[in-house]
Amino acid sequence: MVYNCDVGDDIGQIKNAIEYAFGKADIILITGGLGPTDDDLTRNGIAQFLNVKLEYHSEIEEKIKKFFAARNYPMPEKNKVQAYLPAGTGEIENSLGTAPGIFYKNGKKIIAAFPGVPSEMKQMFDESVLPKLKEISSSDFLIVRKVRCIGTGESTIVEMLGDSMNRDRNPLINCTVDHGIITLHIVAKAKDKKNAETMAAKDIEKLSGLLGSLVYGLDEQSLAEVVGQKLLEKKKTLALAESCTGGLIAKIITDVPGSSGYFTYGWVTYSNEAKISELGVEKSLIEQFGAVSAEAARAMAAGARKKANSNYAIAATGIAGPQGGSEKKPVGLVYISIASDKGVDTEKFLFGPRNRDFIRLRTCQNALNLLRLKLGG
Amino acid sequence: MVYNCDVGDDIGQIKNAIEYAFGKADIILITGGLGPTDDDLTRNGIAQFLNVKLEYHSEIEEKIKKFFAARNYPMPEKNKVQAYLPAGTGEIENSLGTAPGIFYKNGKKIIAAFPGVPSEMKQMFDESVLPKLKEISSSDFLIVRKVRCIGTGESTIVEMLGDSMNRDRNPLINCTVDHGIITLHIVAKAKDKKNAETMAAKDIEKLSGLLGSLVYGLDEQSLAEVVGQKLLEKKKTLALAESCTGGLIAKIITDVPGSSGYFTYGWVTYSNEAKISELGVEKSLIEQFGAVSAEAARAMAAGARKKANSNYAIAATGIAGPQGGSEKKPVGLVYISIASDKGVDTEKFLFGPRNRDFIRLRTCQNALNLLRLKLGG
Repeated sequence: MVYNCDVGDDIGQIKNAIEYAFGKADIILITGGLGPTDDDLTRNGIAQFLNVKLEYHSEIEEKIKKFFAARNYPMPEKNKVQAYLPAGTGEIENSLGTAPGIFYKNGKKIIAAFPGVPSEMKQMFDESVLPKLKEISSSDFLIVRKVRCIGTGESTIVEMLGDSMNRDRNPLINCTVDHGIITLHIVAKAKDKKNAETMAAKDIEKLSGLLGSLVYGLDEQSLAEVVGQKLLEKKKTLALAESCTGGLIAKIITDVPGSSGYFTYGWVTYSNEAKISELGVEKSLIEQFGAVSAEAARAMAAGARKKANSNYAIAATGIAGPQGGSEKKPVGLVYISIASDKGVDTEKFLFGPRNRDFIRLRTCQNALNLLRLKLGG
Repeated sequence: MVYNCDVGDDIGQIKNAIEYAFGKADIILITGGLGPTDDDLTRNGIAQFLNVKLEYHSEIEEKIKKFFAARNYPMPEKNKVQAYLPAGTGEIENSLGTAPGIFYKNGKKIIAAFPGVPSEMKQMFDESVLPKLKEISSSDFLIVRKVRCIGTGESTIVEMLGDSMNRDRNPLINCTVDHGIITLHIVAKAKDKKNAETMAAKDIEKLSGLLGSLVYGLDEQSLAEVVGQKLLEKKKTLALAESCTGGLIAKIITDVPGSSGYFTYGWVTYSNEAKISELGVEKSLIEQFGAVSAEAARAMAAGARKKANSNYAIAATGIAGPQGGSEKKPVGLVYISIASDKGVDTEKFLFGPRNRDFIRLRTCQNALNLLRLKLGG
């Protein structure tokens, strides 16, 4: 159970929130309010709750000074406050920023406070706090594995699963949806880790059998990672020709470390001139069919593959909106082409009427999925 | 105060959570658990809390059927459950998906349940629930305005503000940081809207005077929007040549509707071959200085501007990691060049040691900020 109290500027409220949470739960995680400014009062709130004073730690000030020195910058006077911790608490080391976290343990009760910056919070939690929480967790062992699917709707997937989602089943199977990615969470409970793992692994096999190629990956695998792995394994290269997605497919492909092993050339041909001069799309083709057409998508993909001398090329052209739609070509109309040594395949999609972000992201995911299916098992 | 209970698969826990929240607050917002699958139990939890039955609404089933029909797809039997609402509650219309929300009002007490899909939740809250909440809100009028800054650290900005951040001041000024963007939140409280607005507007003027060109925009303005507006006003065009950012700058530029008015050509030259063949970077230059060098950044920007025949071009080359760093060229080393009719300016940045996402995003923001400063007021 998560108790979250938005109390940015009031020490008393922070104290009350901790007090309440302490009565309900063993582990209290606090985020934010550890910065150097006057509205950063988590230190004070914890001290008031524990009924202790703040204590100065010279070794923490040294670390903060070093952080600034590495950036050729003297430590501002304001940051000195970050070297104070409530008496009886310890520091959670923060290698990414100036704000140290605060750790307090008394028997089974734990308070851990992190800076609000997501990247710092996440690293500090994973490195310093998660191992401590695992030590004190309950005797039942819980394993959560995820089966990631794309290509149809949640209802269809659930129907394909039959009675596997019964609420009294162990492993329990839950389902979440995020931008076309359907994730099945397999929650296996057993007396020991090995049994829980075996139960979850069996369910992965079962669900994968039922869902076939709708399953693209497991656990935290992204579609771009899976596609990248396949390209690497098969020693194939990829080029991209993007119009409506405006660089988003390239961004998602290059989110993956090591993507330079297969991704070589990308064009964001946002103007017709760019499609013509960079990808060799015929001007007459655009005049006849328009830049948003199956013909343009096909020519973009073929042009990109040829110019990059790559094995595959993806092209996407469409109307991301909110402006630019018409009755014949509404917002959300998108053409995706995949060029390979076997020619160019083109699919038409209607993602609208939805907002720009939605249409662009769905275009990317469908483009990657088409390439995944083409690359095979 | 936000009370949040992660209770996906237990009706009783949902009921208890609502009961607890009802005792503490007037307005209870619930997200998730309205889908068609067996783990979607928010409907049942609310019904149990209100001690009523679920009632079938044929008009809701009709809407769900229409939603599927528009996608050339029959409604799966599973989705019928979404046509049920707890007796005495109303529907919150969902134009983006199949799950209707649930609205309950009794005197000052409100329960509103939304599907967990962020885009649906947000639109339903803004359109249907926010207006109702505003009607019943307290007599003090609160205006929140935001001043968005980039170019230095939080501590420096706070020092420049002097005593403006005192906790007993009205407007109250709070400060948050997100990936190098420092946001000052001006919270003005007054008996009526006009006074609160005037107080906030005066503070915007005051802060802008103190911070000068560190302020890039107000309220929800993104850096890409501000840069785009300047380009549009000045009727200038922009081309992009990206290496380490891999399409992220283009993505952020094209997140803005209407960006085709100034953004024309983008290259994601992820391989050396692409830098040479597409941007005309000399092979010998890469051999002498490397692809991550001031020289390469400069040649990429000049090449992109020339080939796109644009007024400005941004180039970024660097080491996003986690692999590829060396002692001389560590992970986080990035060069950004801006080409204009006045030549090419290049800056060197050291964003490491940080993760790939951080380095890429900071590169984008600094690139956009350099262009913003070049474009002037």
